[in-house]
Amino acid sequence: MAKKDGFVKQITSRDIDFAQWYTDVCLKAELCDYSSVKGCMIVRPLGTALWEGIQHAVDTQLKATGHQNVLMPMLIPESLLLKEAEHVEGFAPEVAWVTAGGDSELQERLAVRPTSEVMFCEHFKKIIHSHRDLPVLYNQWVSVVRWEKTTRPFLRTTEFFWHEGHTCHADYADADKEALSILDMYVDICENMLAIPVVSGVKSESEKFAGADKTYTNETLMYDGKALQITTSHHLGDNFGKAFEITYADKNGQEQFVNTTSWAITTRAIGGMIMVHSDDRGLVLPPRIAPTQVAIIPIAQHKEGVLDKAYELRDELKDKVTVMVDASEKQPGWKFSEAEMKGYPIRIEIGPKDIEAGEVIVVRRDTLEKTKMALDADLGTKLQTLLDEIHDNMLAKARERQNAKTRVAKTKEEFAELIKDGGFVIAPWSGSEEIEDLIKEETGASSRCLSFEYQDADLTGVKDLWNGEDAKYMMHWAKAY
Amino acid sequence: MAKKDGFVKQITSRDIDFAQWYTDVCLKAELCDYSSVKGCMIVRPLGTALWEGIQHAVDTQLKATGHQNVLMPMLIPESLLLKEAEHVEGFAPEVAWVTAGGDSELQERLAVRPTSEVMFCEHFKKIIHSHRDLPVLYNQWVSVVRWEKTTRPFLRTTEFFWHEGHTCHADYADADKEALSILDMYVDICENMLAIPVVSGVKSESEKFAGADKTYTNETLMYDGKALQITTSHHLGDNFGKAFEITYADKNGQEQFVNTTSWAITTRAIGGMIMVHSDDRGLVLPPRIAPTQVAIIPIAQHKEGVLDKAYELRDELKDKVTVMVDASEKQPGWKFSEAEMKGYPIRIEIGPKDIEAGEVIVVRRDTLEKTKMALDADLGTKLQTLLDEIHDNMLAKARERQNAKTRVAKTKEEFAELIKDGGFVIAPWSGSEEIEDLIKEETGASSRCLSFEYQDADLTGVKDLWNGEDAKYMMHWAKAY
Repeated sequence: MAKKDGFVKQITSRDIDFAQWYTDVCLKAELCDYSSVKGCMIVRPLGTALWEGIQHAVDTQLKATGHQNVLMPMLIPESLLLKEAEHVEGFAPEVAWVTAGGDSELQERLAVRPTSEVMFCEHFKKIIHSHRDLPVLYNQWVSVVRWEKTTRPFLRTTEFFWHEGHTCHADYADADKEALSILDMYVDICENMLAIPVVSGVKSESEKFAGADKTYTNETLMYDGKALQITTSHHLGDNFGKAFEITYADKNGQEQFVNTTSWAITTRAIGGMIMVHSDDRGLVLPPRIAPTQVAIIPIAQHKEGVLDKAYELRDELKDKVTVMVDASEKQPGWKFSEAEMKGYPIRIEIGPKDIEAGEVIVVRRDTLEKTKMALDADLGTKLQTLLDEIHDNMLAKARERQNAKTRVAKTKEEFAELIKDGGFVIAPWSGSEEIEDLIKEETGASSRCLSFEYQDADLTGVKDLWNGEDAKYMMHWAKAY
Repeated sequence: MAKKDGFVKQITSRDIDFAQWYTDVCLKAELCDYSSVKGCMIVRPLGTALWEGIQHAVDTQLKATGHQNVLMPMLIPESLLLKEAEHVEGFAPEVAWVTAGGDSELQERLAVRPTSEVMFCEHFKKIIHSHRDLPVLYNQWVSVVRWEKTTRPFLRTTEFFWHEGHTCHADYADADKEALSILDMYVDICENMLAIPVVSGVKSESEKFAGADKTYTNETLMYDGKALQITTSHHLGDNFGKAFEITYADKNGQEQFVNTTSWAITTRAIGGMIMVHSDDRGLVLPPRIAPTQVAIIPIAQHKEGVLDKAYELRDELKDKVTVMVDASEKQPGWKFSEAEMKGYPIRIEIGPKDIEAGEVIVVRRDTLEKTKMALDADLGTKLQTLLDEIHDNMLAKARERQNAKTRVAKTKEEFAELIKDGGFVIAPWSGSEEIEDLIKEETGASSRCLSFEYQDADLTGVKDLWNGEDAKYMMHWAKAY
């Protein structure tokens, strides 16, 4: 428990009970709250601001690369959902069904969308005719509902918020290029905004999206050593093109099926961000997504000039960093703890003595290191530099932990030991789904991805650790959220 | 039908069949499309960009005035919806009910939110304790579902997109101030962005929101003389405070109920914008919401230098206006018609002769007036000025039409005649709901609002036109969407 300079809200230590710690941070940093709807959360202002930060970054990048936003209905007729066989098989068990409107029973029940491939495809069929209509690059910002048995704030909720991209291309290669460039965009968002290092790669057949040809994924490790699929991008091949008869006339007038992709980042990424960076004092926000980067906390604010100076400082800084003054009627110690709980990347303490000395105390949230900085015209620039340092440090620390917890297993016994210890375990695999099931049963680990790093590895003479067959993949495995 | 310079997409004339004209514009300008879900529309890229324009303007103003965004679950347990009696009575007939999740029947059915007062109130009860917690100023951007029998793109759809603001205040006057200042914000958006003049006022008892104490409204007239409620802001009094037991300790430690407000702008506003401004050539977009303000159309684009010059012009203009080049393989006449259909406020025609003469042809969409402008460094600034002129002209034209169609009736016979002719009819009314029902039955008109202009009118000796009782209100009446 964090205790320092007065009152703190008590939270469980992450080394004692990680799950409880996580819930404590979500609730006490006021990111979210429970609602009376089982499995659905209320995203509070701080949580919503984080989601808006992700939205803004993704939306800007998508628009810059020619993607257009649309809005599809949230209700999907059952018959439409049934059109792509694998897809419906994957989603049917978790669909929420609308069966009545007002006082009338519906003739056909409607799914609250669990994902919108089928709605997009039905529309694509109407608007695509010629190769000149391609590619179509669409995206929407909505929420979806999947009936989950066990839920957790942000990580797995019955309703969650996401964007879903859906694109149509003339051929397989074009669609592949799109799916991969979107995966790269997510890497950029994860690393350069959320300070989360990822392993990029391809999912196994059994772990891929229902209806996909190939599922690309970015995987990352949480503080507790469990993996999280933080973003995915699916190459759907012509599966949906064929199921929905989306065709176009190519340059020679020949009718061809389109290839499609779909991809998403969800509110889950916020859960990942918490579990990678936060600590026993609460939330630690990466500076580039923090809605407020600097919290100014006045000391002895009743003394003449202190609050004025704090506001003056805020006004001087606000063009360089996002900044607020905590002028509430609480003791400074309480405010420090609150600032730590809410994860402001930098806190500035300013009191009568500091003002007299022409300086302030600057405390960074990631290391809790304190330094003095002169109250001069350079302060804003220095804070900007410090924010970049904090970002780099958070990313480096997470990467270091992830690297240390990524190990290659040489035997199935060693594999089981390493999985128990947490983290990614890399092991050669024949591709057998039976083995995949066996591993899950025996160790609780699932295949996370064939990372791009290992995609072209020379596996001559290397054998599957479990069945002794020739290994096809050096696969990343882990217990996962 | 518009026909000029080659091919145009045929649309019905608005003077011949306004309803068909409206649908034609929505579909042919590619604002939306039908979906396979009854009453739900697909909002296409142009329609979505318009909605994002409204979102951005509203969201910026809300944040500047201290409002915070949150995200509430879209599903509402039936028992929660039942808590405020009038509210549920108003909404129950149009609720879509989720009754199954995956393969299981739900124990309690869940409403797909028709509006979220009850979710917000349940949360408010948890987070509000003291007068120091007030006001709470929340907002969310979501969609809602209301089971409608007759639907029309944007104007009335089963699912529609909106923001919904929900605020809590210490007393009635604070809440009233909030509800009114939001109404003012909407006036600003309507007039200064959408170029739509509005009449602001208060709804009658029977027309107010289910559960409200007072409903403020902005009403406006469409081209066909029917009225549209384009935005509303509700003072809910302490109705929800009491129903949900949302209390706070005031400065004297006394427990008090909060007063709440709620308010919204919806995708309906886009429908209103179309019906106020557009014409037989298609969409006419007010410049401040047009996603692309200027369309550059090259003439004889195969000739050397034409396309290069068009792109050069675009690059020169793009810091001052939003601009695109239509370099598609179509005839200029076709492109002109398309530009008119899609409502770009300004079209620039540039061909070899223009380039030689160092000028371009500038066509404004609102009046279709053509002028020549020099291809020089001032062009961007001149276009900005022209865009402002276009905005002012569109607003003035709509206001003039609205004023001409706003008339005071002196007898009930005159009232009936004027209603038949369309527009607002102002008439003295006792406030009797029976009379209100009678008027609706006999003329099809509903009470739109008691406008602020007439709120303090001296009605001494003035009688209700229908029952001869003392008049309490000089009411605006109209047939409405």
